Amino acid sequence: MMSTPSTEAIEVNGRRYARPAAPVVVVCVDGCEPDYITQAIRAGVVPYLERMLAQGSSLIGDCVVPSFTNPNNISIVTGVPPAVHGISGNFFYDVENGREVMMNDPSYLRAPTLLAAFATAGARVAVVTAKDKLRTLLGHGLKGICFSAEKADQATLADGGIEQVPALVRKPVPSVYSADLSEFVFAAGVKLMQAHRPDLMYLSTTDYVQHKCAPGTAEANAFYAMMDGYLAQLDAMGAVIGLTADHGMSPKTDAGGQPQVIYLQQQLDAALGEGRARVILPITDPYVVHHGALGSFATVYLPDARTTASAQAAIAALPGIEAVLSREDAAHRFELPPDRIGDLVVVSDHLTVIGTRAALHDLSGLTVPLRSHGGVSEQKIPLLFNRPLRALPPTRRLRNFDVFDLALNHAEPPR
Amino acid sequence: MMSTPSTEAIEVNGRRYARPAAPVVVVCVDGCEPDYITQAIRAGVVPYLERMLAQGSSLIGDCVVPSFTNPNNISIVTGVPPAVHGISGNFFYDVENGREVMMNDPSYLRAPTLLAAFATAGARVAVVTAKDKLRTLLGHGLKGICFSAEKADQATLADGGIEQVPALVRKPVPSVYSADLSEFVFAAGVKLMQAHRPDLMYLSTTDYVQHKCAPGTAEANAFYAMMDGYLAQLDAMGAVIGLTADHGMSPKTDAGGQPQVIYLQQQLDAALGEGRARVILPITDPYVVHHGALGSFATVYLPDARTTASAQAAIAALPGIEAVLSREDAAHRFELPPDRIGDLVVVSDHLTVIGTRAALHDLSGLTVPLRSHGGVSEQKIPLLFNRPLRALPPTRRLRNFDVFDLALNHAEPPR
Repeated sequence: MMSTPSTEAIEVNGRRYARPAAPVVVVCVDGCEPDYITQAIRAGVVPYLERMLAQGSSLIGDCVVPSFTNPNNISIVTGVPPAVHGISGNFFYDVENGREVMMNDPSYLRAPTLLAAFATAGARVAVVTAKDKLRTLLGHGLKGICFSAEKADQATLADGGIEQVPALVRKPVPSVYSADLSEFVFAAGVKLMQAHRPDLMYLSTTDYVQHKCAPGTAEANAFYAMMDGYLAQLDAMGAVIGLTADHGMSPKTDAGGQPQVIYLQQQLDAALGEGRARVILPITDPYVVHHGALGSFATVYLPDARTTASAQAAIAALPGIEAVLSREDAAHRFELPPDRIGDLVVVSDHLTVIGTRAALHDLSGLTVPLRSHGGVSEQKIPLLFNRPLRALPPTRRLRNFDVFDLALNHAEPPR
Repeated sequence: MMSTPSTEAIEVNGRRYARPAAPVVVVCVDGCEPDYITQAIRAGVVPYLERMLAQGSSLIGDCVVPSFTNPNNISIVTGVPPAVHGISGNFFYDVENGREVMMNDPSYLRAPTLLAAFATAGARVAVVTAKDKLRTLLGHGLKGICFSAEKADQATLADGGIEQVPALVRKPVPSVYSADLSEFVFAAGVKLMQAHRPDLMYLSTTDYVQHKCAPGTAEANAFYAMMDGYLAQLDAMGAVIGLTADHGMSPKTDAGGQPQVIYLQQQLDAALGEGRARVILPITDPYVVHHGALGSFATVYLPDARTTASAQAAIAALPGIEAVLSREDAAHRFELPPDRIGDLVVVSDHLTVIGTRAALHDLSGLTVPLRSHGGVSEQKIPLLFNRPLRALPPTRRLRNFDVFDLALNHAEPPR
């Protein structure tokens, strides 16, 4: 059911999307390394997912590198890589003005979202995100419902297209650091489907659980069992469901559980001289100095080509480094905007993270062995649908930002 | 205690090893992705390992690629990569004679083992391996004890330096496909330490459990809890313990648990014409067509340079492929013997394995989601010691085949 009778496909960022015949719900499960689902199925705690995959489709795709939340959520809702939409991380370094620039503001978006385009074309669109910091980017230009679980009580008709969300969801606003924050997203999705039956809905969770718990452990399985119940309800209401992830998740420790950190600023200060290189960790949110803020991706700004070359060699020699690419090579390989990455892009391996200086990372908050993401090792993500897909060439490289294309253009319609 | 009074270091394959002051036990835990230990510690089921790491050392190192059992076990006991010792997998293709050649026979070994060298120099040496197929390689030239758990009842004084092993271990000979096979190795190690107090002992398990169970699951934790008890006994007897792995382990499925297989022979037959390429899977044991026989490493033999180039491009374009290297590049990067790999070396990603033709792989035996190894994604392995290590440069790239060097030359002696 569309609000307008038009059946024309909608074109956004060079891709065409069919209008949905049934409500389409795309779920981005933050940090969903595919094995979380495999193990939950094996443990027998996700009967709906098991049925969904038996009747639907299960594929593996690649997320965007850096395998961080913001670049990937924005890729999913724009259908294009960061080279096009511009959001390559949480921030970049503005060399001319000598300052670190946050990219959480929509002014840094270089492409419209397909959500906004569908809404403009008359579709009913709803977006629920766990953390509020993603809300303004996801909701940019959107005439529809858009709110965060974190600030669900602050959503207004004017600002979020909805009000009194906690009353609708019948849950209190959860803590920002909890599994409940993601549960609120799913619960809100079900209530919105019952109350508003949006044509297009995007639900985006937080990886609080995945950062702490390995696939197949009791806590991880409990999270997926929770999710399973809500997905079953959305399916029962006739929704076409597409599930993917912003990125995977790996342990980033030695066998004893101690974080394996390369303090890259320290290393470069030692190799090149104090302060000649500037290491930027795009996972960091500078407004809150996170305990940790450790991921497997960094970008490095350097004063000149010669220093860049010697830094590249020095970094490549460090145990735990997987790749050190020039700006050009990184922009090409990872489809990143060259003006928003440094002279070098550094990726660490699946058990290693990159920090700046030891003194700037407070690891005392890590109460369990560090698990994180950001690198190529967390690039594989699930693409799951509760419908068979048709007309999909087997050699096509699938991305998480194909999920709307697959759900709208390739999923078989409900019988 | 050495059988001879000599205190000279022993030189093997260009490396010097100090004679042990206390018994040194090196354990190779087959398929021990580091997270198995992290999760077992978190679950509180391995109190000795927790204590061992608190008092000793925990490092991460790289195994040999292909991350398979034989090349890595042989690297560990020779202290050198396959480029030197020659065992690059279970078999290679003899182009001149047009036949696939097994490398389980010691005649293919190009370097002596350090175990044999120590024994020749008068040390008491004991080796226990889970599967018998590794026994003849590990025991080559060794004047000491060497037997497999699989055929423990067949060990003789003439052949294995010991007899009546089941009576010594007080356990029946276990099934070759069981966790018990590895437990027998540890139990035998403890009994040998009590009865013979070898100067040098090498214990090598099988990855039956790791192929089936993810880190942190109940069955995996039970395996490590079993191991923990035996390690505690070896420690209590004064042994210096070094623990490493032949390779890691990854899920090789989509989120639904279906194996992700690239049938490379089929792909090349389609791209180049039937039978022009020959795909070799060095994980396979040709005497028993394993159910599965699927790993993340293959080598391809091609008729000429032009076909090689076009095959390289065709393979690189397949989703799930991580690297396609020429013989020269692969030999250089992975330190492999060029005459025992094909014209191309193919590595698949952490969720993907390589097969030949679908019809040649019987997957019906996979009762649980496939987990396997062979690629770069399974290269990280733990290096654990029950002693602090000294004089170890922080930038040194550590390998699993450094484990004897670290235990003999860098571990602090018992107080």
